[in-house]
Amino acid sequence: MKLANLIGQRFKERPADCVIDSHALMVRGGYMKNVGNGIFSEFPVLKRITAKIENIIREEMDAIDGQEVLFPVVLPADLWDESGRYESVGNELLRFTDRSKSRLVLAMTHEEAAVHLVREYAQSYTKYPFMIYQIQRKFRDEARPRAGMIRVREFTMKDAYSFHTSQEDLEQYYARCYDSYNRIFARAGIPEVVTVASDSGMMGGNISHEYMLLTPVGEDSIVICEECDYRANMEAAENQVINDVTGEEAELTCVETPECKTIEDVCRFLKSDETLSCKAVVYQKSSDFSFVVAFVRGDYEVNETKLRNLAGEELYPADITEDSPLVAGYIGPYGISDKVTYYLDVSLKGLKNVVAGANKEGYHYTGLNFERDLDNPQFFDISKVKEGGICPHCGKKTISIKRGIEVGNIFQLGTKYTESMNMQYADENGELKYPIMGCYGIGVGRLAASICEAHHDEYGPIWPITIAPWEVQVCCLRADDAETKKVADELYDTLQKKQTEVLYDDREGVRPGAMFSDADLLGVPIRVVVSPRNLKENMVEITTRDKSVKEMVPVSEAVDYILSLKQKLYEQIMLHV
Amino acid sequence: MKLANLIGQRFKERPADCVIDSHALMVRGGYMKNVGNGIFSEFPVLKRITAKIENIIREEMDAIDGQEVLFPVVLPADLWDESGRYESVGNELLRFTDRSKSRLVLAMTHEEAAVHLVREYAQSYTKYPFMIYQIQRKFRDEARPRAGMIRVREFTMKDAYSFHTSQEDLEQYYARCYDSYNRIFARAGIPEVVTVASDSGMMGGNISHEYMLLTPVGEDSIVICEECDYRANMEAAENQVINDVTGEEAELTCVETPECKTIEDVCRFLKSDETLSCKAVVYQKSSDFSFVVAFVRGDYEVNETKLRNLAGEELYPADITEDSPLVAGYIGPYGISDKVTYYLDVSLKGLKNVVAGANKEGYHYTGLNFERDLDNPQFFDISKVKEGGICPHCGKKTISIKRGIEVGNIFQLGTKYTESMNMQYADENGELKYPIMGCYGIGVGRLAASICEAHHDEYGPIWPITIAPWEVQVCCLRADDAETKKVADELYDTLQKKQTEVLYDDREGVRPGAMFSDADLLGVPIRVVVSPRNLKENMVEITTRDKSVKEMVPVSEAVDYILSLKQKLYEQIMLHV
Repeated sequence: MKLANLIGQRFKERPADCVIDSHALMVRGGYMKNVGNGIFSEFPVLKRITAKIENIIREEMDAIDGQEVLFPVVLPADLWDESGRYESVGNELLRFTDRSKSRLVLAMTHEEAAVHLVREYAQSYTKYPFMIYQIQRKFRDEARPRAGMIRVREFTMKDAYSFHTSQEDLEQYYARCYDSYNRIFARAGIPEVVTVASDSGMMGGNISHEYMLLTPVGEDSIVICEECDYRANMEAAENQVINDVTGEEAELTCVETPECKTIEDVCRFLKSDETLSCKAVVYQKSSDFSFVVAFVRGDYEVNETKLRNLAGEELYPADITEDSPLVAGYIGPYGISDKVTYYLDVSLKGLKNVVAGANKEGYHYTGLNFERDLDNPQFFDISKVKEGGICPHCGKKTISIKRGIEVGNIFQLGTKYTESMNMQYADENGELKYPIMGCYGIGVGRLAASICEAHHDEYGPIWPITIAPWEVQVCCLRADDAETKKVADELYDTLQKKQTEVLYDDREGVRPGAMFSDADLLGVPIRVVVSPRNLKENMVEITTRDKSVKEMVPVSEAVDYILSLKQKLYEQIMLHV
Repeated sequence: MKLANLIGQRFKERPADCVIDSHALMVRGGYMKNVGNGIFSEFPVLKRITAKIENIIREEMDAIDGQEVLFPVVLPADLWDESGRYESVGNELLRFTDRSKSRLVLAMTHEEAAVHLVREYAQSYTKYPFMIYQIQRKFRDEARPRAGMIRVREFTMKDAYSFHTSQEDLEQYYARCYDSYNRIFARAGIPEVVTVASDSGMMGGNISHEYMLLTPVGEDSIVICEECDYRANMEAAENQVINDVTGEEAELTCVETPECKTIEDVCRFLKSDETLSCKAVVYQKSSDFSFVVAFVRGDYEVNETKLRNLAGEELYPADITEDSPLVAGYIGPYGISDKVTYYLDVSLKGLKNVVAGANKEGYHYTGLNFERDLDNPQFFDISKVKEGGICPHCGKKTISIKRGIEVGNIFQLGTKYTESMNMQYADENGELKYPIMGCYGIGVGRLAASICEAHHDEYGPIWPITIAPWEVQVCCLRADDAETKKVADELYDTLQKKQTEVLYDDREGVRPGAMFSDADLLGVPIRVVVSPRNLKENMVEITTRDKSVKEMVPVSEAVDYILSLKQKLYEQIMLHV
């Protein structure tokens, strides 16, 4: 391919709407173009990258006995009625009607379609286990698309669905898929991806993992133990708090705390420590609008995912009015209205002489002791883990909080979809049973952007050779010089004949600086510079985009050198697979 | 791949809702499953076929300098506002809104997205010509999906868009693409596809061609000359009629024709010939609901596409009420209301003493002579060509009407989209100009179904080897017999090592008849049968799905025989490319 013909424009200025580097570089490099809110077109450079990523994924899915299928993007709402998700999923599910007023949805995930496809096929235990996957477009009506290809509305995804006759069999397959995903990310050049335990959210099921690329620009918080191998998504991370408070129990006293509406105000006013205070965060149930109060230690935050799982239903931040059975700013567990559900967090357990709201405008209690003052208090884990917290595995105070981009996820779904959609098989004894499912996703575009985020410098992406748009870029400085052009042309031809993907920049009248800027933005791993100056010494310059190699090589040896360098770059990747 | 693991069930009974063979066979063979009205999932067998078709298309598009890109399935309505098609396209364009009430459409074609992608890139004449293509899902809200994958609502399509600075350059590229399409269809095993001139319809532009697979179950009518190379879609085919009527002109006479509402009634009543009658077909304009009457000779039909193009706007079948300026059943050109637009068809030219409506309830004229009785009558081509009609190229009465499936189309679009969307480039003199576009489509799933329609017998598809799901199927009869199983296993292994795609049926307890029925439904071109009986003579049976080969081959020579047969099947395909 000649660069002069490559469709997509490159430019210098960082676009104002790009908040992360990978997005800015991929816009500047002519990889993608915004079509609408969270909707992009891919230029040829990006399409070449995503095609390579898709091939890696396809090979690895085939290697774990996956069979590729294709589900539609547009699905009848009936299917989602069957699983109950037409009702239960929020606005991310785009619902609409066709010309005959039939209800349709844009598939944001394909569990329903997967069950629909195989439920007649897999009616006997002899058909199990099996896995089907597809690489297909999806649409998720995100409220806040951001960061280029990281959080979009329309995207290409590999999604896989496995079906089993026992939990053990699912777990065995889950482990294979777990390893397969590690191979995929390693082959794509980011072996540093880590897995974290995660909350299954709207997918249902219990055990699930996310594959996280750690980066400060990630939108997920990840809880990592610096000592052992504990890793979890913030939503799923268990919070352990040990309160070792000594001293006598004081008397429960109602004190006036005028104008103290926040826990900071109260603690300042009472000269008490936040770690001895009880903070209230109020929600309402989506079902009946009744109030749910989460009490956490003053210096902790509520983990809404854990709270929601505990409450067993959807919650939203409360709107407290004058009619509410709660006094905003003065809510505490002692004497709280019995119209309210409340939960005490583990961070409160073991505290003595706590400051808490008195459920009375302008008053708080001091000297609250849960075990003494409340009726059989129970403590639940509904708070977020903090930096330096206790690792639930090794018990050391070695918790560190990192940011990450989720590049893949795997779920043990159980029978949520097979039961709701009535997919059954006859077992060895002819008894009808529901198959157990797993599901496994990777977003292709997000993966490309994540690799760019992990591997770039200020000038452009540094693509791993396995997914790079081309393997080699030949830059012919002074293409108007016949001798230079001849050597560069020959290199281009010979390398292509040797099954090498070459991008050839033989543009005339382009300054070397501009040529190199373009090459940096395209991020091709091996660069060959042919120039009159080097040719005087019968040499070409060969460098790698990551700057680890920079050699002058005799023209006659250039092809062999490049082929062996290329081989080495592939081997470096495969070291981590 | 072992057949025992292949996902998708096969069965014997022809499904009641399948009107064409290919649909029935592809449902019976476990290729596809209906998800909703005109919406299908693809099982692994079909996915393997469509992937091969996509690869052929991709190679051929790359060979004519196409660059692969990807456009979104969901597009903002703004883009379609720019081209004017948000308004002008009918209900096939599915319009809906997202969570923030922004208007979106499901792309049924991507001209707007193509112009959007490149309009900043291609601002200088030096960037031209170029072509971009994608292979992507599309959705067209068809009123009447039918015939399985032939007419669906959601489908995978290769669509390509080329951009040029002159009509000559477009025409040169169009010719390259024309040939490229012929190569694609030949490589996919249907070199018999013919091109026909077509009407451009809602795409705009002038010259366009459709690639038609002739088959009685096709939904398009194609006009073919048996003598010369003239071929056109019925919508675009020019109708030539020569009326050689002798004799005197009779007097124009208004006669009573009670209860004669159709042209057949009138001719019977007046004992006149239909070929001497003037039939009226009435439409209304979508813009102002005014009436448009098409007059054709009694034995011809109106070609609505040509009529619409002549009228220059959308028309729909009229609803004639008592208030209308027309008398239903008695409409004729003489004395017709001047509130009505009417057109005379070429089939009326040269007639004498015609029978026509008198625009008066219960009366017709006889002896109507257009040149004498009407004021400067003009004749337009607004009728459908008939079997045995005159070829507009060679002038012989050799027109034949065939049925066909449209498997591809190519259009010269002109500047319809670049002008409306304001895409411009600076030419050599710095003058701003609109690029000229071409566009080129192939439906992947429809092509697969068409190949099946063209190549099947009563037992199943006969896939050309280039797109077959596997190249070879090994059937092990009596897999419970150790010796038989061993030979079959070895064949399976060895063939795979020799880069051959093998489907291996080693199911135990399946009768040979059932095994062969399954193999027939899967349509793999080469079949190897390993059975105890043949092995007694140290032989295996090798056949082709199309029955052209049926050989007993010694076990020791089987692999070589199969590889050479495979090679021959590929060569047979390439003979037509």
